[in-house]
Amino acid sequence: MHIEAKLEAMGLQLHTPGPNPAGVQPRFSRVRVRGNRAYISGHGPGGDTPRGKVGAELTLEQGYEAARQTGLSMLSSLKAELGDLDRVTGWLRVLGMVNVAPGFNATPDVINGFTDLILELYGEDAGAHSRSAVGMAELPFGIPVEIEAEVEVAT
Amino acid sequence: MHIEAKLEAMGLQLHTPGPNPAGVQPRFSRVRVRGNRAYISGHGPGGDTPRGKVGAELTLEQGYEAARQTGLSMLSSLKAELGDLDRVTGWLRVLGMVNVAPGFNATPDVINGFTDLILELYGEDAGAHSRSAVGMAELPFGIPVEIEAEVEVAT
Amino acid sequence: MHIEAKLEAMGLQLHTPGPNPAGVQPRFSRVRVRGNRAYISGHGPGGDTPRGKVGAELTLEQGYEAARQTGLSMLSSLKAELGDLDRVTGWLRVLGMVNVAPGFNATPDVINGFTDLILELYGEDAGAHSRSAVGMAELPFGIPVEIEAEVEVAT
Repeated sequence: MHIEAKLEAMGLQLHTPGPNPAGVQPRFSRVRVRGNRAYISGHGPGGDTPRGKVGAELTLEQGYEAARQTGLSMLSSLKAELGDLDRVTGWLRVLGMVNVAPGFNATPDVINGFTDLILELYGEDAGAHSRSAVGMAELPFGIPVEIEAEVEVAT
Repeated sequence: MHIEAKLEAMGLQLHTPGPNPAGVQPRFSRVRVRGNRAYISGHGPGGDTPRGKVGAELTLEQGYEAARQTGLSMLSSLKAELGDLDRVTGWLRVLGMVNVAPGFNATPDVINGFTDLILELYGEDAGAHSRSAVGMAELPFGIPVEIEAEVEVAT
Repeated sequence: MHIEAKLEAMGLQLHTPGPNPAGVQPRFSRVRVRGNRAYISGHGPGGDTPRGKVGAELTLEQGYEAARQTGLSMLSSLKAELGDLDRVTGWLRVLGMVNVAPGFNATPDVINGFTDLILELYGEDAGAHSRSAVGMAELPFGIPVEIEAEVEVAT
């Protein structure tokens, strides 16, 4: 698949999941591998994505971009854990959570930012995934999108 | 198990997960099978279930019925993917999400509409499942219930 | 690992997930085992943990304690199902849900009450887990925290 070459061809750069609030050390694992499964913690967009709620501080388009950036921060964690992004042989389950302003319910349109990236990189066979895309009351420290996932990995 | 004969005896009909909003083509998989596991996307009730929040536009009883209809739309997706609903050999994990009006927290009573259907169809051995039943700020395009699941399938 | 001896040394007691509302009989499984995986239903703190929303009726510190108590009620269910808590050989996935008052978004700090307990009991190898820690609109019957999980078990 040569995912990293594709990322480079697309002009995309991996970035870490974003700084934690001052003094916070996450005690959980970004990625937990067991057998041929990797369980991926909820990731936020990191980088310089604005914080706030989609439908208030962020537009739908900014939410879509935040979901795409969340994909890049998740890929960064996968690379750190697996060494090579080609070891992901199948995306299985994606839980897409949007920090919504009251009344904003186009949550699938937001999470498409993540899905489109994964399908573009991994193709229909490996990249296809089941998905929920839902609206949350609050997300950690005001991030606009959080996504967790489960993937199959080559052992 | 002969699930489809049971559905017929119960006078129930499968129906598709409901039309997408105009112009929307879902890019994710309704059901993603890998080995002996099927990962099932968040499904809504489809059919002519009213949209809105349980505790406001929908009563508890309508929410229960929406969760039952969600079971039928999920079974429709499983039949399309697996060919035969008897290939589901064990329900494992259910995440039941209710679109709640502020203050409505009888979310387990709503998701029982799904659980009761699955137990009636699959029995206690195959139908038993772990479950969460929780209240969401918003669900896609105003559906009252969304449920995702993971099941064991015969390979 | 001798988890139960550790619990005793820490002065902790398992307690059941708490009484259901009058007349309610849960129809789902607290823990569903299949192969070497156990799927654990969303659990609440049980015991005499106050109900309500973190950031309103409960402080952050009370939320942290509620998440810790949720760990104890989950361990109680695991012991009932598995017989011996040492049969849990790896924590994999944790979905931590906080019943939040509007504007309360320090949800990771709340769910740390659960994570800290699991890491203390199971150590870094078996206890490490992927995690999401997010804010819900409502949780069943007003419990402040609900956590579901998936673990690896010795068969």
